[in-house]
Amino acid sequence: MQNPRVLNALHLRPTDRTPVWFMRQAGRSLPEYRKVRERHSLLEICRIPEVCAEVTLQPVRRLGVDAAILFADIMLPLIALGLDLDIVEGVGPVVARPVREANDVRALRPLEPEDVQFVADDIHATLETLAGAVPLIGFSGAPFTLASYLVEGKPSRDFLMTKRLMYARPDIWEELMSHLGRIVAAYLRAQAEAGVQALQIFDSWVGALSLDDYLRYVQPYTRMLFDGIADLAVPVIHFGTGTSSLLEAMRDVGGDGIGIDWRIPLEVAWQRIGRDRAIQGNLDPLVLLGPWEVVERESRAILDRAGGRPGHIFNVGHGIHPQTDPDQLQRLVELVHGYEPVKGA
Amino acid sequence: MQNPRVLNALHLRPTDRTPVWFMRQAGRSLPEYRKVRERHSLLEICRIPEVCAEVTLQPVRRLGVDAAILFADIMLPLIALGLDLDIVEGVGPVVARPVREANDVRALRPLEPEDVQFVADDIHATLETLAGAVPLIGFSGAPFTLASYLVEGKPSRDFLMTKRLMYARPDIWEELMSHLGRIVAAYLRAQAEAGVQALQIFDSWVGALSLDDYLRYVQPYTRMLFDGIADLAVPVIHFGTGTSSLLEAMRDVGGDGIGIDWRIPLEVAWQRIGRDRAIQGNLDPLVLLGPWEVVERESRAILDRAGGRPGHIFNVGHGIHPQTDPDQLQRLVELVHGYEPVKGA
Repeated sequence: MQNPRVLNALHLRPTDRTPVWFMRQAGRSLPEYRKVRERHSLLEICRIPEVCAEVTLQPVRRLGVDAAILFADIMLPLIALGLDLDIVEGVGPVVARPVREANDVRALRPLEPEDVQFVADDIHATLETLAGAVPLIGFSGAPFTLASYLVEGKPSRDFLMTKRLMYARPDIWEELMSHLGRIVAAYLRAQAEAGVQALQIFDSWVGALSLDDYLRYVQPYTRMLFDGIADLAVPVIHFGTGTSSLLEAMRDVGGDGIGIDWRIPLEVAWQRIGRDRAIQGNLDPLVLLGPWEVVERESRAILDRAGGRPGHIFNVGHGIHPQTDPDQLQRLVELVHGYEPVKGA
Repeated sequence: MQNPRVLNALHLRPTDRTPVWFMRQAGRSLPEYRKVRERHSLLEICRIPEVCAEVTLQPVRRLGVDAAILFADIMLPLIALGLDLDIVEGVGPVVARPVREANDVRALRPLEPEDVQFVADDIHATLETLAGAVPLIGFSGAPFTLASYLVEGKPSRDFLMTKRLMYARPDIWEELMSHLGRIVAAYLRAQAEAGVQALQIFDSWVGALSLDDYLRYVQPYTRMLFDGIADLAVPVIHFGTGTSSLLEAMRDVGGDGIGIDWRIPLEVAWQRIGRDRAIQGNLDPLVLLGPWEVVERESRAILDRAGGRPGHIFNVGHGIHPQTDPDQLQRLVELVHGYEPVKGA
């Protein structure tokens, strides 16, 4: 690995520069990606290894980030199972037949390695093109976040159907979440075996829950997932948004690094998580739609809060917005790499 | 005042029972409200004092809550100014011409007492009907939350346009927020002078911001608002959702009580806010769509966390969902009123 900064940070080892990558760095903010999208849908890109490798590498080439993240979608394990699920531009995942009854859950079958052979092919092609320049991160949605899309049928503000199922039918909920825990574990295992050097688990929407509900309705199944991949030799980042009150509970479940959003000051989060874990974050991605002076000010504030301690991976607190100017991203990578913590701070 | 529990709690005085009311208690969850809505739109109700009084009292009669909250909308001060703004069923506030340029801001005029004479009339009629049974709470959206609707033109998930304006044009933002601060102060003053016994400021969406952004772009204007109403002799509740990282900053601005959502355990929030303030919350309103056992379990957990200390007002963490069964609400009021904290806990 020519640039092991992200992996070193996940192992809390010192790095010459603070490592940086961006969630959704491969995507609509890059003109070269939009060009590919003129010919291929999102899911087509995931099914053609050379195109997937190309799209995954675009931000590495243009921005100089310290990691590639496999171009895919958090819903891919469910799509691989044959669910009628589409990623609709400007909307998000849309499920043709929402999962709300015991029978819907039982209709979900286990994930077999051959279901995601195409992802393994993507990874092989990407690793070959990357040629060890930076690590390749694989990922999946976490059980709760996948369940929320399955139950709602589409992105939701309040997760009404999900919470109603959880409260009213804990038996169905348990079956659904256990099942998703196994599916996600199998999917992450397949990615690790295909050669990704790190994994990120996106529990993007878990911040909609109270701590009690997280502990009761989510943690056991996320734990099942982490237990199911404990033998893998790759570090794992455990990410969610709006998780200010869930940080300890998420850390207890697992993750070499915890990914946070901008809603909590980085040093407050890191202290609560504990210094024996890496931390990833936490610029509001919409800051990147503002002028450079604001990007610089807010990014420096984050770097100052991390204080140059080993284990900080600079990132946005949620995916890059499609309207982001890639020049802004490139400049931010330079800022992060050029940052020198104030001595004695 | 026959039932001063809410006012006593806001002054940290002991109460015989934990006081309880529900945000959006007057609304679609009640059949008697839906009946009124067959004849009148939401904004019509706000313009006919007898109907407004009737709707405001419906939950007091049916549920036995310890406060009435004037039937109105957080956007009412802007509607009173003549903005082309509609409250669309199932959507929320929709602004015909979003406010994004300096000229749009300058077109907003100050709020004069005569603009909201109809609200004063509503309050007089409601107070007469209430006859001192429970206190009447008046309210308004806070400057940031009003600004977010004005700038976005409609409810938003990510507040993209709002943040972009804030970052890119701090001059326009400052003018807009100062202006809204003055408008909201004048509106709350008019309500206090008409006789409401408490006020609630809804900064519902401020939890979308980082602490730094709150301190820079919101706090000065919310402070301006609180300064503008400091001489009023009514206690104020300062509410927001997703505010886990903003609690101290919100408290520093003002509020005899701080309203929180379910995303932070109540005792954690109260400790951070300080015991010299009252706290209001914090049941996830969607719990009320679940079975009674879950409502009971989650509500008791909140009451246990408050520990019977003076200054807790039981409430939901955001508005009641229209699908909520009113029997569930009534039973919850009984549970809260019947609750005895465990001695020595």
